[in-house]
Amino acid sequence: MATLSNATKNALALGSFDTQADLYCFEIARPEVGPNDVAIDIQYCGMCHSDCHACNGDWGLDSWPIAPGHEIAGIVTAIGSSVSKFKVGENVGVGCMIESCRNCDMCQDGLEQLCPNLILTYGSVFPKGKGDNMKDAEGNHTNGGYSTAITVNEHFVFHIPEGIDMKYAGILLCAGITTYSPLNRHILQKGGGKGKKVAIVGFGGLGQMAIKLAKAMGVDSVTILSRNDKKKEQAIKLGCEYIVHSNEENIKAAIRSCDVVLDTVSAPHDIASLLPVLKAGGTYVLLGAVGKPFEVSAMPMIFNYYTIEGSPIGGVPETQEMLEFCAKHKVVPEYRVIDAKEANQQFKAMMNGESLADRCVIDIATLKNLEVVESKLDSCSA
Amino acid sequence: MATLSNATKNALALGSFDTQADLYCFEIARPEVGPNDVAIDIQYCGMCHSDCHACNGDWGLDSWPIAPGHEIAGIVTAIGSSVSKFKVGENVGVGCMIESCRNCDMCQDGLEQLCPNLILTYGSVFPKGKGDNMKDAEGNHTNGGYSTAITVNEHFVFHIPEGIDMKYAGILLCAGITTYSPLNRHILQKGGGKGKKVAIVGFGGLGQMAIKLAKAMGVDSVTILSRNDKKKEQAIKLGCEYIVHSNEENIKAAIRSCDVVLDTVSAPHDIASLLPVLKAGGTYVLLGAVGKPFEVSAMPMIFNYYTIEGSPIGGVPETQEMLEFCAKHKVVPEYRVIDAKEANQQFKAMMNGESLADRCVIDIATLKNLEVVESKLDSCSA
Repeated sequence: MATLSNATKNALALGSFDTQADLYCFEIARPEVGPNDVAIDIQYCGMCHSDCHACNGDWGLDSWPIAPGHEIAGIVTAIGSSVSKFKVGENVGVGCMIESCRNCDMCQDGLEQLCPNLILTYGSVFPKGKGDNMKDAEGNHTNGGYSTAITVNEHFVFHIPEGIDMKYAGILLCAGITTYSPLNRHILQKGGGKGKKVAIVGFGGLGQMAIKLAKAMGVDSVTILSRNDKKKEQAIKLGCEYIVHSNEENIKAAIRSCDVVLDTVSAPHDIASLLPVLKAGGTYVLLGAVGKPFEVSAMPMIFNYYTIEGSPIGGVPETQEMLEFCAKHKVVPEYRVIDAKEANQQFKAMMNGESLADRCVIDIATLKNLEVVESKLDSCSA
Repeated sequence: MATLSNATKNALALGSFDTQADLYCFEIARPEVGPNDVAIDIQYCGMCHSDCHACNGDWGLDSWPIAPGHEIAGIVTAIGSSVSKFKVGENVGVGCMIESCRNCDMCQDGLEQLCPNLILTYGSVFPKGKGDNMKDAEGNHTNGGYSTAITVNEHFVFHIPEGIDMKYAGILLCAGITTYSPLNRHILQKGGGKGKKVAIVGFGGLGQMAIKLAKAMGVDSVTILSRNDKKKEQAIKLGCEYIVHSNEENIKAAIRSCDVVLDTVSAPHDIASLLPVLKAGGTYVLLGAVGKPFEVSAMPMIFNYYTIEGSPIGGVPETQEMLEFCAKHKVVPEYRVIDAKEANQQFKAMMNGESLADRCVIDIATLKNLEVVESKLDSCSA
């Protein structure tokens, strides 16, 4: 699961050599399969906006090259001697995490995503002495799923239930769980969707998932809050109401109508003006990793018993539960499968915030058709 | 429960004639006791910072005179024909609310404080046709507990359990329930205080209550976060840790240590720099009605699964429960009982944010020693 500098290069990867958002194909080494590991041939990997942020260095990465990708679906090719949950040939997925301490309160509660020693699927530095299969990888960062293979401890591998198309299975492990988790807390676990209204700010990959999940939970209505009407038709086709929130009158008309708002937008925007669509006691969930701080006032939050909550993906148990939910309710994200040679263009468009770039899945089998770049790698790997 | 312009003036009140924070004694009319009403001789009324804001017009009041006060403790003098919960002579209290619609989801859930048609103890305008005993009061605002008597629907009257000193009972109905409610949600209802740490920003009336309640809930520790060390000795005497939060190093040392932060400060302050004292998954509760917006960033909120929650007093059932809790655990606020003639000076000091003004209770019996001002009233009552 690491770039092993002295190990045999045994996988192709598509990744960045610097902060310029150019993707190249290069070879990486995945570690040998340890006792608790599952080796996976990756079939599809979704492209997430976080991939851009990470490769760009926005989130603190300072060593390249890196292969991003944490929406991984593939087939088990080998298992370690102690692996009990998986069999060779099985359809599996890997999401945003590949390891955590397993001992802290968070890990014990199945909230591995909050472990202070969490290791992300890409861009994380391996801590010293963390797992046999990582011992040669100290100081190197993890590489993600824009790659032909990955090896992951079974705890962080998910069963893909029957009925879920492998093309879209990886999407569920990021956009899916990110939207499922708050909807699970605030809708499913609070008596289900009947009588409840959900609003969604933004209509990209997360927004689309949120609509489908909220509908599957049986909510009375889903409202898209968007700054323009470009995606109105598409939203209405999915059975949603659509409000252009830049118009104050529109917000006034929707005042105190929603139980939950899921804000999926990762560009800076005004949150204070959207809060009033919440009923008293409602929750505004932040999902978009906006860098710039936002402003809100205590008074309306207190008088309306409003909550603003940051929500980071979900833990391992909840993620598997989400997959079962999606299989049962036939929740299928609508993404476009692209050839690896198109990935670079999509990556740049995503980096530039062009909405057409949303919702792409790389067909990993097409990686082998790309030219492997070695010289650039050598100059960057120091 | 209203100023009835044509009714007999049957109670003394202490209140403002304008936004100047001067308190005068004047006569008001309380309505006759309706079938569901309880008439109360007020013995003590606490002075709350909200009283200043309301009288000052900060919260939208535009007609004077007004008697503030929503920390009311007194004795039942009469009950309506349908009153079943109370007897004449019983010790009772009235808090921040005196009526709500009783039909909305919030009222049905015992969250009357969130009812869109909530009537506050003072400063609320009676809606049309709302209760027989209010029909003559349309357009007039309610008057609070800086007064010798009040008449309130029994739904909003609380039993003062044995063992609670009447001097401090009223305090519990504002500062008490305001701090109890979030501690109840985040400590008591989540398995109790064992293993939990609470931080409290500010150490006035609310802060003091929060300390006592958190201790009574058995938390491992309570930390006071203050901008200076003026109250350090006092906090340590109550068994608290004390952190001067203006010092960055102090915050760094407390990072990720607390389950809940109760922010009781009503002056503008930096919240983003205090958030990191929360453990992952922790809740920052806003209790201080700060007018100016505050800034926070989505990223740390998402990655740490932080929640910022506005918390407005509590509903009727939770308030009675809080009183029982305080009686059982001998939670007694430390307030100074003052004569009505000192109230004006305290009110001004409170308005100016002088901390010595915190935590005063007016001995209502002393109101009768004040000179009744009528001329000023006449000029203001239009």
